[in-house]
Amino acid sequence: MSITPATLMTLWQTVLKLSRVKPGEQVVVLNTYDGSTPYKSVALSQSEILGAQVSYVEVPSRHGLPDAVLPLLQAADLIIDLAFILDSQIHRCRETGTRVLVILEPPEILERMLPQVADQQRAIAAKHQLAQAQVMHVTSAAGTDFYAPLGEFPAMCQYGFADEPGHWDQWPGAFVFTFPNEGSVNGTVVLDRGDIIFPFFSYIQSPITLQVENGFIREITGAFDADYMKAFMAQYQDNNVYAISHIGWGLSHNGQWEALGLYGKGETEGQDGRAFAGNFLFSTGPNTVGGGQRSTPCHLDVPMRHCSVYLDDQPVVLNGEVMSDQQTSPPLAIV
Amino acid sequence: MSITPATLMTLWQTVLKLSRVKPGEQVVVLNTYDGSTPYKSVALSQSEILGAQVSYVEVPSRHGLPDAVLPLLQAADLIIDLAFILDSQIHRCRETGTRVLVILEPPEILERMLPQVADQQRAIAAKHQLAQAQVMHVTSAAGTDFYAPLGEFPAMCQYGFADEPGHWDQWPGAFVFTFPNEGSVNGTVVLDRGDIIFPFFSYIQSPITLQVENGFIREITGAFDADYMKAFMAQYQDNNVYAISHIGWGLSHNGQWEALGLYGKGETEGQDGRAFAGNFLFSTGPNTVGGGQRSTPCHLDVPMRHCSVYLDDQPVVLNGEVMSDQQTSPPLAIV
Amino acid sequence: MSITPATLMTLWQTVLKLSRVKPGEQVVVLNTYDGSTPYKSVALSQSEILGAQVSYVEVPSRHGLPDAVLPLLQAADLIIDLAFILDSQIHRCRETGTRVLVILEPPEILERMLPQVADQQRAIAAKHQLAQAQVMHVTSAAGTDFYAPLGEFPAMCQYGFADEPGHWDQWPGAFVFTFPNEGSVNGTVVLDRGDIIFPFFSYIQSPITLQVENGFIREITGAFDADYMKAFMAQYQDNNVYAISHIGWGLSHNGQWEALGLYGKGETEGQDGRAFAGNFLFSTGPNTVGGGQRSTPCHLDVPMRHCSVYLDDQPVVLNGEVMSDQQTSPPLAIV
Amino acid sequence: MSITPATLMTLWQTVLKLSRVKPGEQVVVLNTYDGSTPYKSVALSQSEILGAQVSYVEVPSRHGLPDAVLPLLQAADLIIDLAFILDSQIHRCRETGTRVLVILEPPEILERMLPQVADQQRAIAAKHQLAQAQVMHVTSAAGTDFYAPLGEFPAMCQYGFADEPGHWDQWPGAFVFTFPNEGSVNGTVVLDRGDIIFPFFSYIQSPITLQVENGFIREITGAFDADYMKAFMAQYQDNNVYAISHIGWGLSHNGQWEALGLYGKGETEGQDGRAFAGNFLFSTGPNTVGGGQRSTPCHLDVPMRHCSVYLDDQPVVLNGEVMSDQQTSPPLAIV
Amino acid sequence: MSITPATLMTLWQTVLKLSRVKPGEQVVVLNTYDGSTPYKSVALSQSEILGAQVSYVEVPSRHGLPDAVLPLLQAADLIIDLAFILDSQIHRCRETGTRVLVILEPPEILERMLPQVADQQRAIAAKHQLAQAQVMHVTSAAGTDFYAPLGEFPAMCQYGFADEPGHWDQWPGAFVFTFPNEGSVNGTVVLDRGDIIFPFFSYIQSPITLQVENGFIREITGAFDADYMKAFMAQYQDNNVYAISHIGWGLSHNGQWEALGLYGKGETEGQDGRAFAGNFLFSTGPNTVGGGQRSTPCHLDVPMRHCSVYLDDQPVVLNGEVMSDQQTSPPLAIV
Amino acid sequence: MSITPATLMTLWQTVLKLSRVKPGEQVVVLNTYDGSTPYKSVALSQSEILGAQVSYVEVPSRHGLPDAVLPLLQAADLIIDLAFILDSQIHRCRETGTRVLVILEPPEILERMLPQVADQQRAIAAKHQLAQAQVMHVTSAAGTDFYAPLGEFPAMCQYGFADEPGHWDQWPGAFVFTFPNEGSVNGTVVLDRGDIIFPFFSYIQSPITLQVENGFIREITGAFDADYMKAFMAQYQDNNVYAISHIGWGLSHNGQWEALGLYGKGETEGQDGRAFAGNFLFSTGPNTVGGGQRSTPCHLDVPMRHCSVYLDDQPVVLNGEVMSDQQTSPPLAIV
Repeated sequence: MSITPATLMTLWQTVLKLSRVKPGEQVVVLNTYDGSTPYKSVALSQSEILGAQVSYVEVPSRHGLPDAVLPLLQAADLIIDLAFILDSQIHRCRETGTRVLVILEPPEILERMLPQVADQQRAIAAKHQLAQAQVMHVTSAAGTDFYAPLGEFPAMCQYGFADEPGHWDQWPGAFVFTFPNEGSVNGTVVLDRGDIIFPFFSYIQSPITLQVENGFIREITGAFDADYMKAFMAQYQDNNVYAISHIGWGLSHNGQWEALGLYGKGETEGQDGRAFAGNFLFSTGPNTVGGGQRSTPCHLDVPMRHCSVYLDDQPVVLNGEVMSDQQTSPPLAIV
Repeated sequence: MSITPATLMTLWQTVLKLSRVKPGEQVVVLNTYDGSTPYKSVALSQSEILGAQVSYVEVPSRHGLPDAVLPLLQAADLIIDLAFILDSQIHRCRETGTRVLVILEPPEILERMLPQVADQQRAIAAKHQLAQAQVMHVTSAAGTDFYAPLGEFPAMCQYGFADEPGHWDQWPGAFVFTFPNEGSVNGTVVLDRGDIIFPFFSYIQSPITLQVENGFIREITGAFDADYMKAFMAQYQDNNVYAISHIGWGLSHNGQWEALGLYGKGETEGQDGRAFAGNFLFSTGPNTVGGGQRSTPCHLDVPMRHCSVYLDDQPVVLNGEVMSDQQTSPPLAIV
Repeated sequence: MSITPATLMTLWQTVLKLSRVKPGEQVVVLNTYDGSTPYKSVALSQSEILGAQVSYVEVPSRHGLPDAVLPLLQAADLIIDLAFILDSQIHRCRETGTRVLVILEPPEILERMLPQVADQQRAIAAKHQLAQAQVMHVTSAAGTDFYAPLGEFPAMCQYGFADEPGHWDQWPGAFVFTFPNEGSVNGTVVLDRGDIIFPFFSYIQSPITLQVENGFIREITGAFDADYMKAFMAQYQDNNVYAISHIGWGLSHNGQWEALGLYGKGETEGQDGRAFAGNFLFSTGPNTVGGGQRSTPCHLDVPMRHCSVYLDDQPVVLNGEVMSDQQTSPPLAIV
Repeated sequence: MSITPATLMTLWQTVLKLSRVKPGEQVVVLNTYDGSTPYKSVALSQSEILGAQVSYVEVPSRHGLPDAVLPLLQAADLIIDLAFILDSQIHRCRETGTRVLVILEPPEILERMLPQVADQQRAIAAKHQLAQAQVMHVTSAAGTDFYAPLGEFPAMCQYGFADEPGHWDQWPGAFVFTFPNEGSVNGTVVLDRGDIIFPFFSYIQSPITLQVENGFIREITGAFDADYMKAFMAQYQDNNVYAISHIGWGLSHNGQWEALGLYGKGETEGQDGRAFAGNFLFSTGPNTVGGGQRSTPCHLDVPMRHCSVYLDDQPVVLNGEVMSDQQTSPPLAIV
Repeated sequence: MSITPATLMTLWQTVLKLSRVKPGEQVVVLNTYDGSTPYKSVALSQSEILGAQVSYVEVPSRHGLPDAVLPLLQAADLIIDLAFILDSQIHRCRETGTRVLVILEPPEILERMLPQVADQQRAIAAKHQLAQAQVMHVTSAAGTDFYAPLGEFPAMCQYGFADEPGHWDQWPGAFVFTFPNEGSVNGTVVLDRGDIIFPFFSYIQSPITLQVENGFIREITGAFDADYMKAFMAQYQDNNVYAISHIGWGLSHNGQWEALGLYGKGETEGQDGRAFAGNFLFSTGPNTVGGGQRSTPCHLDVPMRHCSVYLDDQPVVLNGEVMSDQQTSPPLAIV
Repeated sequence: MSITPATLMTLWQTVLKLSRVKPGEQVVVLNTYDGSTPYKSVALSQSEILGAQVSYVEVPSRHGLPDAVLPLLQAADLIIDLAFILDSQIHRCRETGTRVLVILEPPEILERMLPQVADQQRAIAAKHQLAQAQVMHVTSAAGTDFYAPLGEFPAMCQYGFADEPGHWDQWPGAFVFTFPNEGSVNGTVVLDRGDIIFPFFSYIQSPITLQVENGFIREITGAFDADYMKAFMAQYQDNNVYAISHIGWGLSHNGQWEALGLYGKGETEGQDGRAFAGNFLFSTGPNTVGGGQRSTPCHLDVPMRHCSVYLDDQPVVLNGEVMSDQQTSPPLAIV
């Protein structure tokens, strides 16, 4: 799994070109004071080699940007975010055209899941499909059965690079998502053995059953994993924690459900889990990214295997397999 | 979870002031040769800013202090121990008034569990209560039911700073404990799913039943977790491994049972687990720290949830909730 | 568990002397560009102190050696491989007498499992026994029952140092193994709770039943662990993944089954697991190291507890205990 | 000469307070990619401790700021420049109130020459005196005798901190200067043995005689030092190199002419030399900082000892001694 | 003078292409154990980007290569020597076609003196001229007047890159040289104020007169500089120290005599001094590089200004100016 | 000049054995917080390999030891001082037997000047000779002629290792010295071109004449070097600066007067200069080390060449050559 300096440079060249870095563009590489990253040097050099004017900025924390930094970010054409800044001000900058690309995964995942134009094509095809749907219905053999009315919030997608003005993305990972209409989701979600809850970074060992009523989880039952999930959420003492956040499905043919089992906590950001093709990506907490008003610091991403996802009764994912020809490519063997 | 250099300095100022570092005091910062710590610089600077004369010492190993270092430690007013030295000589130095403060947890845990005077007040109230008890009786729905006669050894407590001459503490964590009378504990301890065994740094997934007779565990039964615990203890080929060590309960309102699930092994020292309010902290092995004669290198700390602890039939913890008003404060929501 | 610089040097002196490093010998210390190791300095200095001419080489990747490096490796008397190079060219160098010693484990495991001449004696006694056998039969209370005809491939062993021309070894670990005759293994292998699969670096929590027919695993059944194993292997889209690789048993009296539970993924290489005395070390994938033609990048090492291993109906391991006096020594207590 | 972390923090607190860093202010710490500095951490922490919002920025080079960085610098209240940026854009930012403080000297010089309010008082008194003068006449026993008509450009001063909106300064160093009227200087300047030319960072060993005509040096004569100076300036192939830049005198009672002899080239920035009390600071090259039109990359700073400086025939420095009571304080003994 | 990572990569690309690094070539980057260099990473990545197979090797010392390293160096197409290895074995490797390029100067000198094809053309033109000469006569106003019969040894040149099989060079620097016939040089060499002696890394302040008889310096007279030179050479207690080594002239239009005055000892390798156009490069000690038998560890390189060099009475350098149109280009102004 | 890790270890073994480090001894390695040294690791490991109990201590500054550190230093058998602590408390520790060895020079000087028993023998022979003298008379062709009555203070010597209880030494360097009777020296000292003044770390280029009256320098005349020396001393505003400190002569046959010319300021500590055989080592300032009462922070060490030193009219050094057979060995050639 070792990657040479030259290979790393080549990977970055590819993604920066996909992100349309051009001569004269302003690229800002962003980090926190205590943010360790192996990518500072390669981000600076490869942006500059493409002709960009590049600067490197560190801010005190992921959670708050100093006021003086905001005009810098607005003046940027592309922000390479090596810290995954959570301050919503970064999204304000997108309104004036700034692109943002988050890069956190270790080198061998950046390489294995290297984005391609085809990732973008699949993701945009899925976004168009999702944008037209009025209701999402999800079922699984494990017992999931719930309805999410759609339309209040836009369909969105990620594909691993940031090419359009204002686009926010993360290298790597392709998936599509939207937010259900406020207060509208109803039904049962059964997280099955092997499903993943981020930020716990482990496979569930015992099923968890969630009863969802009018957009909020009202009951969490099961064995240890349910116990832990319940306790984790309870700490926040905040009802919004139980709301449904984004829902969608994974589109990365080179993302691997199995990858998480090879890494310790903190050694991966989890993009394999979020993006592997055909996962139903359920999540809890805020919907501000979609334009909603619900804000909470507790956000769980829950990739689920073996689900079927229907849009207005049309299957888009059947038992964990993406259906549309426009959204699939053959899975890759590991070499 | 990123913490700025200035915030870290402020946290240290707070704890060093709680530890009563004064102008002219001798502060010795202690580490091992191979001991990596993020705190060397902040320990030196913040002690010096409070007016202390500060020195920094490295010793070969946690297990043995060179002879020449002993007079230095004795001459110290406060030892800031960044390695958790296990040589009992460090406790001899306390007899002449040296205070000791161990600091190992990562910055965001130091911040979240920042000690306050109220921690000390709760811990001392609990210590007084425990000092007067003649027997501790512990029960749980999972099947725990055992009696520990008390009185032979003193009641002790930790609260996260080292303010009194000879006091040993660790930042962070508030709890109270004593050692049962030698050879006196009898009954059953059932470690339940979700309880923690240190140094395994994971939640138990299957209950473990311990039969305790006259102060020693005589039977360990259950599934995989029991199997592992049994094998781990057997390696030492030492009967003292099975003795009961300290017993007590947690008092930190800002300690979180859930925290362990977010860290890889070795990324936290486990003070959340040991100190979260209302846990019954059971342990095995030596009782030398309490003044006993039983020594063994194998020491398991076992925070248990949902127990009830009675002192002379008075409940002090009921189903994992601390009872006494003097020992409680409202739990904190995560922001 | 801290080890001083001087102790580390002494350990290395011991193993380099066991590996017969002599004045005037050519020692090559090998690493990858991005290969972090704590041993570069000690490898260089201790080899040189024994009188060797020493050089240090870095190659781009574990998977491919630059052509120019091959004559250097051939000219070496001993290669100290700090990266575990997988390029088969390294084995070509052994044909002209180059010895190879891989060293990856953390210092405290190097110390606890420090090789001795007795390790070599036990391993060679076992190798002689295995070399004469015509069939290996393995059973366990969990349900394992399979036959592996032997004789097509040589018996081999490791003992923690590289003393003979052309010998390849890893510090630490003593065990013996061979490869079953091509396409010949039949029966059932039941991986039990607590058995280990590398590179997953965790204990199995639910039994996995493998049906083996004519040298290949044809069915994998069980709960989550079986599910994960099946999915992991399927990614390679390669039938050879399911073949049986080397089989043998562990001989390290100082290897600990329990050790894995104390380390995060990536913090140990797993030599405790592979080598603890009496484990049946099952594995899957290639047999090229034994001289076979089957190659695949997917290789699982599976140490199993509580098995009985018979060679031509003679028990060599009974329920996880090594039988032969020549292959045993008393287990060590941890101090 | 060793300085502890706490002492360094205290020095910075002093200077940042003199520079009026206040709660809520925007402080930007500025560096180049390859700019090594011991002050990144202390700059960030001490600014934040004073309540500022702080960010850290790196730019590719001292000679050009990326466009996106300009709005950040304009939004800053104080720029702490750890690289001495030469791009004139930094001075544009001052027009909207941004203060700039350059810090380059090693810690023991920052400490010995720690700025005080008295430095500012002396420097401002001198600036007022200089602002009213119409001609500066400088003589020395070595042969210097020249006249510089004044008035076209403003009088300016530095005193080691940046307290006023738009003020640019460097820690440490107090001196006063202006630029002679364009094309007006005439006479002879004799650099004597022991005078210093920056950036050569050495004492002149042989006198250099400069003939100045209408604002430009027209002849350079002498031995090796003259030879070297002449060759150095000739490389630029630019007539502006020979123009007279700023002229003024040093006011730092804790600056030492002798200090340069204790440092290797590159180990000090030379503020001792530029600022020691009573030196006549002559210089060559550009006058853009004063508001002139003459630009050239070659700028020599030449502190001269034992000169007498007259303003409109009034002596302000006599044989290297500052005359005005308002501009002097007793020299410090080294302890 | 700051250079960005991307600029450094571009400079290396240029020189590696001039050195004809091609896909499939073997590039070996060579260093010593304790050899600090800023160029390891850029050497590896830029070679690999050109398609080379690259390895990195460290040897114990500049003075002796381990035997096992020799076949590696012979197998290399290009050795990038970051330590300036002095073992003559490195020159044996050149016999089988290995090219060698030494790189030691700091980045800003690599940039300012970036080699071009024109450097090579000038150097080769000068080499052809020198190869045909039978005697070199050198004079100077300072008193130099000596004759060196030529023809016994080949004419050689450097131009900053290594393009031909077996060529040895150093980036940067263009000059031409040969070795006088053994025992044949006679006359007087007067090192003048401002001339440079390497490895003293300073300008001579007082003239040194050398009387040369039959190839050896027989008298050294002058003031302090002569005293120091005499004492330095005497330490070796070796007559060969006084022999004449290579003689030739500098051809780098972008080399600067003045540069040395801006660097501390050890901050530059001195290629400016050795290569600035028109210097007469005199030297003392060995002639093995030219094919002679005289070996000694003491080697002084002495660039002299303002000399005239005649080959068979034809002036090739007159008073420090190169005469031949084929060997000159306009000097560069510093920008 | 590169030294391998193994060679460095061997050198340290030699000197620690000469310093009689024994099993069970307490060795304390001493440094300052900001003290960079390449020797921490080798000091710890090589002391421990000799069986010592070793600890590592850092103190805030060279000028003041924290009180708590004093009992540690007193408990030490050997202090390895990597910072050259100036606090006189370190000498108090010697009274109870603690040995002290300062080590500051770069590796290649430690190697070239490696101490031997013969260094000790020469130094002790010289000390005995000096101890019996009543007056030292020093002359030189340059004009030195002064008398120093002796007897009030002991004769002392250094030889590069610390073998006797209470002995203080520095690796490397052998020389002998005493302090003249208080207020008794009279005459003229002429520092000649090429003599060295520490801490200026350069060769004098112009003679300096010192008039000494009753133990104090009363006049300093000459050109630039005299000017600089006078100014440097005047800064202290302290009459004791002008007193005569220790006087003696160098005894290191492997010390080189020439070495200083190859190093930048701060790259060497100057032990070559202080110790080269036959130098007359003159110095100014304090005499507390000899037991006197005169204290001042300004201390100049001045190695002078070509002097003759007479003790009670017997020549011990004649024109820079040591006379006594017991104090000489043949100078070494550089290889």
